[in-house]
Amino acid sequence: MNSKIRIGICGYGNLGRGVESEAAKNPDMELAAVFTRRKPAESLQIKARVPVVHIDNAAGWKDKIDVMILCGGSANDLPAQGPELAKTFNTVDSFDTHAKIPGYFSAVDRSAKSGGNLSIVSIGWDPGLFSLMRLYMGSVIGDGKTYTFWGKGVSQGHSDAIRGIEGVVDAVQYTIPEGSAMERIRNGERPELSTREKHTRLCYTVAAKDADKARIEREIKEMPNYFDEYDTTVHFISAEELKANHGKLPHGGNVIHIGATGAGNSHVMEFSLKLDSNPEFTASVLLAYARAAYKMSGKGECGARTIFDIPPGLLSPLGAEDIVKNLL
Amino acid sequence: MNSKIRIGICGYGNLGRGVESEAAKNPDMELAAVFTRRKPAESLQIKARVPVVHIDNAAGWKDKIDVMILCGGSANDLPAQGPELAKTFNTVDSFDTHAKIPGYFSAVDRSAKSGGNLSIVSIGWDPGLFSLMRLYMGSVIGDGKTYTFWGKGVSQGHSDAIRGIEGVVDAVQYTIPEGSAMERIRNGERPELSTREKHTRLCYTVAAKDADKARIEREIKEMPNYFDEYDTTVHFISAEELKANHGKLPHGGNVIHIGATGAGNSHVMEFSLKLDSNPEFTASVLLAYARAAYKMSGKGECGARTIFDIPPGLLSPLGAEDIVKNLL
Repeated sequence: MNSKIRIGICGYGNLGRGVESEAAKNPDMELAAVFTRRKPAESLQIKARVPVVHIDNAAGWKDKIDVMILCGGSANDLPAQGPELAKTFNTVDSFDTHAKIPGYFSAVDRSAKSGGNLSIVSIGWDPGLFSLMRLYMGSVIGDGKTYTFWGKGVSQGHSDAIRGIEGVVDAVQYTIPEGSAMERIRNGERPELSTREKHTRLCYTVAAKDADKARIEREIKEMPNYFDEYDTTVHFISAEELKANHGKLPHGGNVIHIGATGAGNSHVMEFSLKLDSNPEFTASVLLAYARAAYKMSGKGECGARTIFDIPPGLLSPLGAEDIVKNLL
Repeated sequence: MNSKIRIGICGYGNLGRGVESEAAKNPDMELAAVFTRRKPAESLQIKARVPVVHIDNAAGWKDKIDVMILCGGSANDLPAQGPELAKTFNTVDSFDTHAKIPGYFSAVDRSAKSGGNLSIVSIGWDPGLFSLMRLYMGSVIGDGKTYTFWGKGVSQGHSDAIRGIEGVVDAVQYTIPEGSAMERIRNGERPELSTREKHTRLCYTVAAKDADKARIEREIKEMPNYFDEYDTTVHFISAEELKANHGKLPHGGNVIHIGATGAGNSHVMEFSLKLDSNPEFTASVLLAYARAAYKMSGKGECGARTIFDIPPGLLSPLGAEDIVKNLL
């Protein structure tokens, strides 16, 4: 084994750049290469001083990468890349198309077993750390109810949906949790909350010159699945203002469990995240699980795993004794 | 294997009674017996309709208990009971004398291996869920700092310490976290906080008739380790008022991690508990880990484990597919 965990990045969007910056901060890791579909690969400019390699040549890096972190999208990249790369590498990915996770898991599992590799799928914060919290909370107090709230944060899917409307030049959509609903739960209620009661949506939109803003606003608010079940506010601003004030990708959220024990005793468990940079935080979670994948693979384990399968201690750069001494 | 996990309780104080009430709420568990040091054992009145057995006769229950939950104290009970009972049973305990955990772990590990049993030590919420959170948070963002706050809640150790003062009839001590310190962290600071800056202590004291209250207050506030490093408030109240208003055992706390990624992006992770009943909640955590011990033992694993070693999915009564479907 190498003295450091050699990390490969596959896909150099926001998430890939996050892995690039955060891998450098983990003293037990080193970035080995970035893989891309771009041709020629060298045309991709990256920050780290490591090779940029075309993904078709990835197999040649089998002995030079300990864990490949898949930073592509769930819609178009991971369904093929995940199973393909798991034949050659230990992998960690953030596959998040919820309904398709079982099928994806099975495909990755077959590949990973065929190659003797360890793959951890659907890592990040939701799915990811939030999933873990839902599991811990619900397992500790079964007589309870778990709620998940997201935001305040930028939803890239919703921003993209607005950008697809005719006459829209650019847009940023914030998902905003309903604080009053959270307070009710924290105060011991177990409310049945509709979609509308849990979150609102706030849209900053840049319209083309002479575009019909009233029509754009109506099309946003009535868009099925994305907006029609929510109270949505639409602001039209200039491209300059969008760039100046809405260029970051903050996010976060809360998992809250209200449970009961004994004769009417109430318990509130809550986990919250307040993130300046969604991709950099997600990258940090992926890297912690890359550490676990490396250790599990080193012990001869192979196949696909979810976050629920990973013993927590494997995430830490500390040894077992130091974990007990410093953290227990 | 039995269709339900058969739980034994060893020690019938607040925690044991909590396990008794909460085991009954887990559909996959059933309470099998309560073990006590009292002689005769039958003189112990319990609520559940199960046998009360003297601890000296525990070994005879080897085939009738799947997991023994050790509900004794860390000072006087567990150092002997933990290693002794791990020879015969899978065990879960809440051993919390932090400096002595490595030695205790080793002793339990030897016994558990000799008997082919699985023992999970130091389970609860701190040590326990809070330890887990410190691990997850620090592993995800190494460039950060983790803070733990406790309360508002009753510290039984501190209440007992006050009761030991001459002229004190009874007392309840609340540990109170300093909200302003938590706010500083949530706002992105990484302050160095002294003991005094993190928590204050609030004492409700019942004094004997004609006792010197000024002396009692002074003795409380100056008590080494327990109070001298804190700002402490002492109220003298009647025995009736203490019973009416301070008879419960609420507790809770917050684990907060402030971390940084990229070029100055800040991230706040926070886990909080607000518990009406400390012993019932702790019992609930012990039972979830009893489920894990049962599953691990069923796969042939043996020896001692800490909370860091347990794959989260094992805590759930749900099967792996349902966990992925419902919680991921």
